[in-house]
Amino acid sequence: MATGKINVSVDNIFPLIKKFLYSDHEIFLRELISNATDATLKLKHLTSIGEAKVEYGNPQIEVKVNKDAKTLHISDQGIGMTEEEVTKYINEVAFSGAEEFLDKYKDAGKDAGIIGHFGLGFYSAFMVADKVEIITKSFKDAPSVHWSCEGNPEFELTEGTREERGTEIILHIAEDSEEFLEEGRIRELLQKYNKFMPVPIKFGTRTETLPKPEGAAEDEPAPTQEVDDIINNPNPAWTKKPTDLKDEDYGAFYRELYPMQFEEPLFNIHLNVDYPFNLTGILYFPKLKNDLNLQKDRIQLYQNQVFVTDNVEGIVPEFLTMLRGVIDSPDIPLNVSRSYLQADGAVKKISSYITRKVADKLQSLFKEDREAFEQKWNDIKIVIEYGMLSEEKFYEKADGFALYPTVDGAYYTFEELKEKIAPQQTDKDGKCVILYASETEAQHSYIEAAKEKGYEVLLMDSPIVSHLMQKLEGDKEKISFARVDADPLEKLIQKEEKQISKLSEEEQETLKGQLQGVLGEQSSFTVQLEAMDSKQAPFVITEPEFMRRMKEMQQTGGGGMFGMGNMPEMYNLVVNTNHPLTGEILNTKTDKKRERLIRQSLDLARLSKGLLKGEELTKFIARSYDMVK
Amino acid sequence: MATGKINVSVDNIFPLIKKFLYSDHEIFLRELISNATDATLKLKHLTSIGEAKVEYGNPQIEVKVNKDAKTLHISDQGIGMTEEEVTKYINEVAFSGAEEFLDKYKDAGKDAGIIGHFGLGFYSAFMVADKVEIITKSFKDAPSVHWSCEGNPEFELTEGTREERGTEIILHIAEDSEEFLEEGRIRELLQKYNKFMPVPIKFGTRTETLPKPEGAAEDEPAPTQEVDDIINNPNPAWTKKPTDLKDEDYGAFYRELYPMQFEEPLFNIHLNVDYPFNLTGILYFPKLKNDLNLQKDRIQLYQNQVFVTDNVEGIVPEFLTMLRGVIDSPDIPLNVSRSYLQADGAVKKISSYITRKVADKLQSLFKEDREAFEQKWNDIKIVIEYGMLSEEKFYEKADGFALYPTVDGAYYTFEELKEKIAPQQTDKDGKCVILYASETEAQHSYIEAAKEKGYEVLLMDSPIVSHLMQKLEGDKEKISFARVDADPLEKLIQKEEKQISKLSEEEQETLKGQLQGVLGEQSSFTVQLEAMDSKQAPFVITEPEFMRRMKEMQQTGGGGMFGMGNMPEMYNLVVNTNHPLTGEILNTKTDKKRERLIRQSLDLARLSKGLLKGEELTKFIARSYDMVK
Repeated sequence: MATGKINVSVDNIFPLIKKFLYSDHEIFLRELISNATDATLKLKHLTSIGEAKVEYGNPQIEVKVNKDAKTLHISDQGIGMTEEEVTKYINEVAFSGAEEFLDKYKDAGKDAGIIGHFGLGFYSAFMVADKVEIITKSFKDAPSVHWSCEGNPEFELTEGTREERGTEIILHIAEDSEEFLEEGRIRELLQKYNKFMPVPIKFGTRTETLPKPEGAAEDEPAPTQEVDDIINNPNPAWTKKPTDLKDEDYGAFYRELYPMQFEEPLFNIHLNVDYPFNLTGILYFPKLKNDLNLQKDRIQLYQNQVFVTDNVEGIVPEFLTMLRGVIDSPDIPLNVSRSYLQADGAVKKISSYITRKVADKLQSLFKEDREAFEQKWNDIKIVIEYGMLSEEKFYEKADGFALYPTVDGAYYTFEELKEKIAPQQTDKDGKCVILYASETEAQHSYIEAAKEKGYEVLLMDSPIVSHLMQKLEGDKEKISFARVDADPLEKLIQKEEKQISKLSEEEQETLKGQLQGVLGEQSSFTVQLEAMDSKQAPFVITEPEFMRRMKEMQQTGGGGMFGMGNMPEMYNLVVNTNHPLTGEILNTKTDKKRERLIRQSLDLARLSKGLLKGEELTKFIARSYDMVK
Repeated sequence: MATGKINVSVDNIFPLIKKFLYSDHEIFLRELISNATDATLKLKHLTSIGEAKVEYGNPQIEVKVNKDAKTLHISDQGIGMTEEEVTKYINEVAFSGAEEFLDKYKDAGKDAGIIGHFGLGFYSAFMVADKVEIITKSFKDAPSVHWSCEGNPEFELTEGTREERGTEIILHIAEDSEEFLEEGRIRELLQKYNKFMPVPIKFGTRTETLPKPEGAAEDEPAPTQEVDDIINNPNPAWTKKPTDLKDEDYGAFYRELYPMQFEEPLFNIHLNVDYPFNLTGILYFPKLKNDLNLQKDRIQLYQNQVFVTDNVEGIVPEFLTMLRGVIDSPDIPLNVSRSYLQADGAVKKISSYITRKVADKLQSLFKEDREAFEQKWNDIKIVIEYGMLSEEKFYEKADGFALYPTVDGAYYTFEELKEKIAPQQTDKDGKCVILYASETEAQHSYIEAAKEKGYEVLLMDSPIVSHLMQKLEGDKEKISFARVDADPLEKLIQKEEKQISKLSEEEQETLKGQLQGVLGEQSSFTVQLEAMDSKQAPFVITEPEFMRRMKEMQQTGGGGMFGMGNMPEMYNLVVNTNHPLTGEILNTKTDKKRERLIRQSLDLARLSKGLLKGEELTKFIARSYDMVK
């Protein structure tokens, strides 16, 4: 048996880095700025504990592009390196400086804010540069050092001329990466990855207008000055305590996160937990549209103020991915597969913590100012309804604050609704029937008929509401949902006492024959005679609840019954035997006149249900113009 | 000045691999199977040129899961390694075996199908395993070797007991990666990455039913046998010559690519080019819906039969990302940023080659069987129209085959259309006005009116068609598009001879006053009196072309006029002064009766344009029931 040590071939490490280190080359800038931040915060810590006898001051990081020389410069005013340290940290690839520092100052580590995760990244510079220089001077009394390397294992080390403490990295950008010499591209990257890093980052200057001196002439232009353009906010709201923040601060931070978003968020949830995992963040509820798919991926994930990704799938429960905001946690494992993420204990805890915080916030908004909560309901219901369907724990909590609005703008909780409608809307078997509409315009005549009988009609118009009703029917006792056009009201809520039909059984048989004769055998309508209130319409078209709901559930993905999504629509033609027009049809002498009466009534019923279209509508209109004259 | 060699710290190479090598850990299996394929194809090449004096046979690769032992096995019957080669290829990280081999057999390289790109990947095994073993025996007369390493730089090397030529890799799966011990997960990965690799891959066995022996009793079950379950097709259609493939072969390959897709593709385009870049592939035109966003990312990108990605953004022109199929090219750079990809010369050439091939195919389909092409038009027009808008070269070619269908199902090219309609539809200024509808049902009465005048009406119903009309109007001479409800037909196509109005100027003034009195000042309708054919409707609502089109263009992203997307709809109420009903309104004695006539006519006009809804519709219906009686 032989044993040995695997030998890493140095000659191949650069191509390896270039090809495989990160799939996205732009990441190099984040890595280098993380290192610069790291070096600055190390100095802050050492001065604070008295180990470095220098003034910390107000250090900043500067990024500069020199398009002529084809170089990109990143410099900091941090801890700097001695020759010995350059040899140790730079010449030994994959020797993580941050890790060693953290070991030494373990307890202080967290407070000092060291970005441990990205310490390995210096070599990512070679993904975009064919030569890299380091010019550095340590805070210790040691000479400056100038290191350079042309993307092969050989490096050069000479004494540098830098006099101030800190480090400058110079990248000689390679030909295939010249996009990184464009100021616009660099600004875009800084905005994406470094917008909230803890040390100020300067990128060029901008012109600032000063107030006019007193007594200046009116046509004199206001004086201006050039100031450093600091691209980041080193103290973003989520790093502060909730008690130190006002509503305006949350609003201002939202605009910082989403500068192109003109609509204000509705409210926010400040996340802040230390144990058993570390997580801070602010989530915002924006106004949501009734569309589940187009609004995801707005939450940004950070680790110690460094942007990581805007894909929080697996970390945030799916129904909350429609929210916006920031989550910052060093405890979320990166670069792992989604199935691992979902099985990870810490991630599971984070996900259920976020769900709980959101439910608690909604509950307290509901309690503290119900009216305001009601006003927001239509803009947030999609998240809440989706959450009720997908997370059992959220469903339980939501029972207290989920609202059911009526077409007239009243808002009930489920319990309130039941109490309100039970007296009128309980049928003869003791079941409470909840009536709803999905579109107030299209179902107007049906809604009016229900209201005339003293019934409440809910407006249930989100795309997943059929799934929610199905769940509530299974969960709550003795209730059911029915859309106002599912059946005549007399059948939707059956009472003990029955309306008496003005027509005899024999007359009804005759009428049914007359109707079917005109409709023909191919008709898609099932004729149904019903003794209704004489004030109700003579002809009404209904669409049975069960079939329609199963179809809808299939169409909005999952649930329902297999194959139902493609079934044709089924309608009933309900004829009110107590309406005078019905009697007139029955007793009309000539077949021709009867047919005309039936056809015109049927067209009006179809118009009411939105079924009269195209050629048939054109003909109806032409016929009606004739009748106007 | 000092110089030196960067020293790669071996102790840190494993954590580095684990964390950074690939963001997606599942890739390890692709890498190991690529290596196994590589080893097999190398042997094939060496036997074919007589350098290996062994029988090549029918080698296969086998993948096995041992859940109890928590191991995953990948074995091949390829070239194998001697102890010397293990030391050279395995113990020296980042020393690419494939590269050296390619150097040696340069010219043969391509034909032997060496997967050069993935040679570095062996160490990706340590992303999921905490111990890896290699048991290998070279095709040369050398003893078997057993290498093992526990994820640190120390390895062990002993003599192995393997007797057959080839290599077996054994991964001892780490605790955080146990998903890779699930048979379902491994099968999913094999299906994703290795479905078309060139050496057969066995994963377990499956039961095959054999034909019953002659004379067997009827109730006797058919005999079965266990056969190897080969998960891949080593010779996928795109690697074959177009002349060797029939229509059925293309259909069968489509079903192989998209087993869950039940609809047949409409036609395909076989790509095959050697110079100045290497590309093979088959693109399919599926039936497309009128939605631009939901159908992308179905084209799969391969390199030498190894799956790389299904995101071909930047490689295939955007309008063609709605197609399906396969592209295989070793010349597309991987792991580079999108902006680099777009600037890359080879990629640009590939993109314009694909565009040209698609245009040529469409042209030849049009020429060879126009009727069949017309039948497919509605399913493919979205791609062609989008291409005409986004690629100037495609626009030029498409002029020959882009079709303009009428509401009655005739299909014209632009030239044919102009020739057909010019006699009737050229106005007094010599401009040819092309009438169109966007929905046949909703615009039925307007379409009928145009057809009665002998005009052709196109059906232009894709979402980007307003942009295309804008482009055609700018490009072609003396033509313009107008929707049938944009104005009265007499104004849409103005002729020299004018209709004479039955009403005097004075009467018209009176009528206008009467109408405006009933409409009120808040009305959203602009009243317009027009001397039209007396057979046309008395009241017609129109919606001016320009405003509507600008709005639509804004809503479908880009173009149009800024801010127009949110403008309210604008309508004209056109009153036909030659219709008898109009005269009746003018001459009615009582205001009440006149108002009723105007209101009912207005409601009918609104109904015709789809504007009568909700409460107004309910009232209209109630009023109409009364009129029926």
